[in-house]
Amino acid sequence: MLKPFLHALAPDEVRNLIRKFKVLDSEIVDLDESFCRVLSKAVKADHDLPEFNRSTMDGFAVRSIDTFGATESSPALFKTVGEIAMGRDHDYSLKSGETVRIWTGGALPSNADAVVMLEHVEEINSDSVEILKAVAPFDNIARKGEDFRSGELLLDPGRRLRPADVGILAAMGRTGVPVTKRPVVGIISSGDEIVPADQIPPPGCVRDINRHTVSAAVRDAFATPLWLGLTPDSLKSVKKLLADGLAKSDMVMISGGSSMGSRDFVIDAIKSHSDSEIMIHGVSVSPGKPFIMARVGTKPVIGLPGHPVSAMVCFDQFVVPIIRRLEGESSLLPFMKPKVEAILSRNISSKEGRVDFVRVKLHGSDGNWLATPTLGKSGMVSSMARSHGYVRIPLDCEGLYKGDKVNVILFANWAGEEFEKEYLFGHEASPGGFGIVFGASRQEKLSRI
Amino acid sequence: MLKPFLHALAPDEVRNLIRKFKVLDSEIVDLDESFCRVLSKAVKADHDLPEFNRSTMDGFAVRSIDTFGATESSPALFKTVGEIAMGRDHDYSLKSGETVRIWTGGALPSNADAVVMLEHVEEINSDSVEILKAVAPFDNIARKGEDFRSGELLLDPGRRLRPADVGILAAMGRTGVPVTKRPVVGIISSGDEIVPADQIPPPGCVRDINRHTVSAAVRDAFATPLWLGLTPDSLKSVKKLLADGLAKSDMVMISGGSSMGSRDFVIDAIKSHSDSEIMIHGVSVSPGKPFIMARVGTKPVIGLPGHPVSAMVCFDQFVVPIIRRLEGESSLLPFMKPKVEAILSRNISSKEGRVDFVRVKLHGSDGNWLATPTLGKSGMVSSMARSHGYVRIPLDCEGLYKGDKVNVILFANWAGEEFEKEYLFGHEASPGGFGIVFGASRQEKLSRI
Repeated sequence: MLKPFLHALAPDEVRNLIRKFKVLDSEIVDLDESFCRVLSKAVKADHDLPEFNRSTMDGFAVRSIDTFGATESSPALFKTVGEIAMGRDHDYSLKSGETVRIWTGGALPSNADAVVMLEHVEEINSDSVEILKAVAPFDNIARKGEDFRSGELLLDPGRRLRPADVGILAAMGRTGVPVTKRPVVGIISSGDEIVPADQIPPPGCVRDINRHTVSAAVRDAFATPLWLGLTPDSLKSVKKLLADGLAKSDMVMISGGSSMGSRDFVIDAIKSHSDSEIMIHGVSVSPGKPFIMARVGTKPVIGLPGHPVSAMVCFDQFVVPIIRRLEGESSLLPFMKPKVEAILSRNISSKEGRVDFVRVKLHGSDGNWLATPTLGKSGMVSSMARSHGYVRIPLDCEGLYKGDKVNVILFANWAGEEFEKEYLFGHEASPGGFGIVFGASRQEKLSRI
Repeated sequence: MLKPFLHALAPDEVRNLIRKFKVLDSEIVDLDESFCRVLSKAVKADHDLPEFNRSTMDGFAVRSIDTFGATESSPALFKTVGEIAMGRDHDYSLKSGETVRIWTGGALPSNADAVVMLEHVEEINSDSVEILKAVAPFDNIARKGEDFRSGELLLDPGRRLRPADVGILAAMGRTGVPVTKRPVVGIISSGDEIVPADQIPPPGCVRDINRHTVSAAVRDAFATPLWLGLTPDSLKSVKKLLADGLAKSDMVMISGGSSMGSRDFVIDAIKSHSDSEIMIHGVSVSPGKPFIMARVGTKPVIGLPGHPVSAMVCFDQFVVPIIRRLEGESSLLPFMKPKVEAILSRNISSKEGRVDFVRVKLHGSDGNWLATPTLGKSGMVSSMARSHGYVRIPLDCEGLYKGDKVNVILFANWAGEEFEKEYLFGHEASPGGFGIVFGASRQEKLSRI
C-alpha cells in the first residue's frame, strides 16, 4: 500500500482544485422556473422603474409649492379637477391650486411633484378639498427611475436567484431567463454486503442507506439525482457503472464500499480512463476520511465513504462546492446554514491535524443553548437524525472543554416548534407581538382577547 | 370606513388562529420523494440496527480476553482461521487464540467481541498474526441494536424530513412513506394598473411582479404554486377567481390591488361565502400593513399587500406558518434563516406599536459585520435584491442607534463567495485547512504546494 503523504490543504486550495471542473452550459428557462437557479448572463435594466412618477399613497396629487404653509389650523383650499384612473393614460396638468385624486400606484400628472395623504385632506365637496399639511417635493411618490435606471447592472452572472431577483426579472419583462443547466448527479452504491432498501437483508447484509441520504442531499443542493445502480465489490462492475454514469450525468458519486478492496476498485475504475486525475484521496476530516475527488475529462468523480454520517459530512464540505461550481455559482463554499452559539456540556477530544465534525444535540438552559455531543459511531444514521447540527473543530485544535462557547451549524432550516421559537426570539430582549388591526366586530374581538 | 381597532396580538395568539386551518390529508410517497416532506405517522423501528455485531474497522476479529496484556514489545500470537466475506452468512466460532480477518461492516463471529485494527497487527504468514495492542470488549464494533432497537420511536409525525431521516427510513426498509400532501397554493394578482410580465406596460401601468416573487416564495416553503390569474379591480372578477381558486387549491393568495376599492373587493369576495371569517385585517407590521388573513370553510384566504417588499415580509411572517400548518408540521414559525450579528452603521427610527423589518446590506469591517439600512420604499423590488437580509425592530421599540448590535436575518442560505467565507469562518479564531492525503505521486503533490 502506498504510504499516504499528508499535506494540509487550505480551503482556498481545495476551491482552486474544484475550479478545474467545467461550468455546465446555459439554457433559457421560464421566469417561474428560474428561482434557485444560477444566472448565466448579467441582467441590465433596459428601462427605468418606475417608468413614471408613481404615487405611494392614496391621496391627492399636487404641486408641492401650492401647499406651502398649509396646517390644520390654516388649511389650503384646492380645486379638485378629477381622479386618476388606475392603469389608464391621462394628460392632467395642474394649474396653481388644483389637485387630482390619486391612488397608490397611480401615475402623477406631468407637473405634480407630491401627493398629500388622505388623512391630511378634508373633502369639502366633490369639487374642492382642504389640505391640512404642507408637502415637500417628492413626498409620497416613487420617482421615475428610483427603483432602478435604464442601463444599470441589476444582477450579476453566477448569482443564485432569490424571490426578489425573480421580481426584478419580472419587472424587466424577462420571461425567459438565461441560467446554467441544473447538474445531474449520478449516484452509485457499492459493497458486497449492501442490499436495496426494499429487500430484507440476509444475514451479514444491510440495506442501502447512502443511496437515499445522498439523493436527498443532492436535491438539497438544488441539483438532480440520477440513480445508476448498486454494484458488488468488483472492478468490472464498478467500471461499467462509472462509464454509464459519465455518459448520462454531469458528475458521478460512488459511495462505499467499505472493504479495502472496493476502495481500490473505485480508484482503478477512475484511472482506467485516459484523461483522468485523482485530485484528493483521503482527507484528514472526521468523520469522512476515505473521501476521493477525481476528474475524468472535465467531469467530477467522487468517492464517498460508506458510513452514512461520513458520507454526509463529505457531501456538505466538498460535494456542495463542486455542485456550485458546475452550476457556475460565484461562491464555492458549503451553503450557509442557521448557526447558533452554544455552550459545550462536556469535553470533546480531537486529534490535532484533523478537522472534526462533532454531532450535537441542543437544548435551552438559563437563556443559553447547551450543546451535548451525540455519542454514536459514523456508521450510525440515527445519531445524525437525533442531532440538531454539528460543531466544527479546526485542524490545529486538540479538543474543546466543557463550558467552551461553540458555533453549532444546524442541519436544516427547520427543527421543531420549541427549538425554532428560541432561535427566532431567544436573543431578543423583547420579542413583542404583531400589531393586528381587526376588521371584525368588537364583540368578536373581545371574545378573542 | 370602519374605525380600526388595534390590539397587539402575541405571536402565540396568531399561531392559535392559524391552528384553525385544517391539516391536509396524507398520502404515501416513494422514499426518494419523501425528503423535505412532512411525516404524517410516527415511525418505529421494527428490528434492531445493526442486526448483528458489525465491525467498524478493517482488521482482525478476536475474543478481547485473548489479547489481554498484548503490546508492541510483547505481542500476542494468534492463529488466523479464515476471512469473513462481506455480505455472506458464516458460522465462525473462535477458540482461544484464534482470529479471523474482517472488513469494515463485516459480521463478527458469534463469540468474538472486538476487532483489532490492521495497524496494530503484524501478519507473520497466512496462518498467523501478532497482535500488538490489547483491545477491550466492544472495541471497534457497532453492537447489535446500537444504532436503534426494535420498537424504538424513530421519527415523530409532524417532522419535516431531513436527509438523515430519509436514511433511517431506508434502513428500516420503508420505501413508501406516509406524508401530508404538499399544499397547492393558488395565486391571484389584482389591480387595474397591472399587466402580465410578458407585456409592455402601457402608460400608467406596471408589470406584475408579485405573481412571480410570491410563486418563488411558495416553492421556497416547499409548497406548490398554482397561478389562477390576473384580475382588474372588479368585485365580480375577484369573486370568480377566488371561487375558482378555492375549488382548485388548498389555499388562495390575492396580492394587490393597491387601490382602496380593490382592497374592499377582496374582503367582500371572501364574505360572499357563507362559512367565512376575516381573522386578521391589517397588521401593525412595516412593511406589510394591509395584510388579510381569512378562512372560507377550512381553507385559508390571504390578502397580500400590493407592494412587492411588503408582500414578501408578510409571506415570511404569516404565510409560511400557514403553509406549515396545512402540511401538518409541528412548528408554525417562519423558517429559520442564517442570522448574523452586526453593528448598525446609522440610526433607524421606528414607531412604537409597530414591528419594523428594515432591509440592510452587510459588509465586513474590522472583523465585525456592519449593517447599513437599504433606503428604498416598499414598492421597490430592487431594494430587497440589493439587501442581504433584514433587522426586526420589535413592537415596543422606538428605534435603534448607530453602533447597536443587531441580528440580521438573511434572505437565503447563499449570498456570494466573500460573504459566505466570512459567515463560515469569520468567527473562528483559526479556520485552519482540511487535511488532505494525496494518493498522487510526490512529484505531483509538490507541484501543487
